Amino acid sequence: MLEKDSLNKAFTYIEPGPVTLVTTREGRKNNICTISWMMAINYSAHCHIAVSTGPWNHTFQTLMGTRECCVCIPQADMAETVVGIGTVSGEEIDKFREFGLTPVKAEIVKAPLIEECIASLECRVIDYIEEHGLVILQCEQLWVDKAREFDPMLHANGDGTFRVDSSRVINLRDKMRMWVPEGSERF
Amino acid sequence: MLEKDSLNKAFTYIEPGPVTLVTTREGRKNNICTISWMMAINYSAHCHIAVSTGPWNHTFQTLMGTRECCVCIPQADMAETVVGIGTVSGEEIDKFREFGLTPVKAEIVKAPLIEECIASLECRVIDYIEEHGLVILQCEQLWVDKAREFDPMLHANGDGTFRVDSSRVINLRDKMRMWVPEGSERF
Repeated sequence: MLEKDSLNKAFTYIEPGPVTLVTTREGRKNNICTISWMMAINYSAHCHIAVSTGPWNHTFQTLMGTRECCVCIPQADMAETVVGIGTVSGEEIDKFREFGLTPVKAEIVKAPLIEECIASLECRVIDYIEEHGLVILQCEQLWVDKAREFDPMLHANGDGTFRVDSSRVINLRDKMRMWVPEGSERF
Repeated sequence: MLEKDSLNKAFTYIEPGPVTLVTTREGRKNNICTISWMMAINYSAHCHIAVSTGPWNHTFQTLMGTRECCVCIPQADMAETVVGIGTVSGEEIDKFREFGLTPVKAEIVKAPLIEECIASLECRVIDYIEEHGLVILQCEQLWVDKAREFDPMLHANGDGTFRVDSSRVINLRDKMRMWVPEGSERF
């Protein structure tokens, strides 16, 4: 079950480079797309995220029209779902139904959280850099499934293959204390 | 040993979200910094990469002055080195010597490759978006250590802890054939 968590931790779900599922809502229609070109660009109170996308992506129209979305982090065992979502168009089908995912009402934005994901970040669009196809998001709320928080993430190689996190976590926080934003500790 | 490889594969080293080591050279002085906020933003012939950095980073001055760098991908067992490099300033010390790394002459840019890394990408700076602290790089040459190519990468959580790839590679290329850029296959 997704529960609200501190916004100070939001960037820690993006920084490791997972494949993400981005949800949007236009009128009464939810949609999802798969995006792995995404990165945190600051860890201010409301973490900013850069996303590489553009008009070639169906979701882009809704994203720019509604100025909001949720960025959801699937766990590694959702690889087939993630690829399925990335290879069909939401113009004709309901991807939540097609892939057996559960949309959950968010609090700030109209786009839904995804129940089956490790975490979902409610975001607003704050800028678009057309020349480089970069949408800048601002994170407004973080939802985490505490039971699944430490599950392995999925990382795209971009060549049709994916890496999966091992259960090994290297903790070097003592050596980089000065550089760890307060309240961001998850592990 | 680093060998040249096809530029079509360059983005496959950035897309999984590894922590990277970025080298620069100013006059006769090599430097290295640790950056994990980096993503591929296209996979054209010369892959473009967005890097989140700015004037608060010592390397930024050299990067903007010389307009070039190498982006190097450390393997997971270099975690302590990666953190060490990220927590000291190159103003006073020679980080290659301090951390026992071997600079290797690149072909196109003056910044060095790193012998101990899985791969090194020679890059030119093509743009800087000051408002969001984003430097845009263009990849000019890819070097890969074929013996280490499949070793696990290191992913920063951003809270002083790191994830490590498992040896599990999920291959779903058949399902996303249309979306896999030609010549990018590594696994």
